[in-house]
Amino acid sequence: MSDAARLTLTTVEGEGLRFAVHTGRFMMTLDSGREAMAASPVQAVLAALGGCSGMDVISILRKKRQQVTGYAVELTGERAAEHPRVYTRIEILHRVTGHGVSPAAVADAIRLSDTKYCSVHAMLAASVEIVSRFEIEEA
Amino acid sequence: MSDAARLTLTTVEGEGLRFAVHTGRFMMTLDSGREAMAASPVQAVLAALGGCSGMDVISILRKKRQQVTGYAVELTGERAAEHPRVYTRIEILHRVTGHGVSPAAVADAIRLSDTKYCSVHAMLAASVEIVSRFEIEEA
Repeated sequence: MSDAARLTLTTVEGEGLRFAVHTGRFMMTLDSGREAMAASPVQAVLAALGGCSGMDVISILRKKRQQVTGYAVELTGERAAEHPRVYTRIEILHRVTGHGVSPAAVADAIRLSDTKYCSVHAMLAASVEIVSRFEIEEA
Repeated sequence: MSDAARLTLTTVEGEGLRFAVHTGRFMMTLDSGREAMAASPVQAVLAALGGCSGMDVISILRKKRQQVTGYAVELTGERAAEHPRVYTRIEILHRVTGHGVSPAAVADAIRLSDTKYCSVHAMLAASVEIVSRFEIEEA
């Protein structure tokens, strides 16, 4: 199986760095610089890691019949000072809200995502230190 | 320097996997599954690689005073059949349109991005084979 993406520079004139992205049936915008109107590519990578991990974790919690009423994923990525300005360390905080959600179930879901299912995590973990933790709040 | 992202699951009810993403001053949506309304996290990674590389290349071509009138980046990513379904190989095709654009300038811009500037490329290249090529069309 394969994925495809096509990006078109919409700011050919001037100094802008805005690209319209078509991928699958979807559109998004990536932008960079002082007058950016959309996320930068590296911000998109951070978002992709959170989305990938979050989709795994909520899917597993649903399978485990956990009563989740709210779920957020917060990420912080530290970047190298020199080019290429890669992330050197990323922290992922899973915030789960629900009724009697089991800490063991959440820990297990995160472990399965980080070690088995999350493709973005697997690709980045070869070069970036990634640390996951979670907090559970009673609804 | 650091980046941050916050993703909120907007489909807590049901089986949906849609997350609203806030990163910096910007919003995007990531989604997955049959009824997805936005790009998946792995599609976002492919887009991010194209955006990162494309922003470098157009910036370098502008510095080299190349007369570019159109620019698109096309990516194809082959994915592993087994979990985690990482990209095993990504092809990046840079399509540059302009007046007398120098092939040596484009090749040099791509080389600088791939080896020095593009942080997304640097992070992925530790685990994914990435191949870049280009085509120039006279405007």
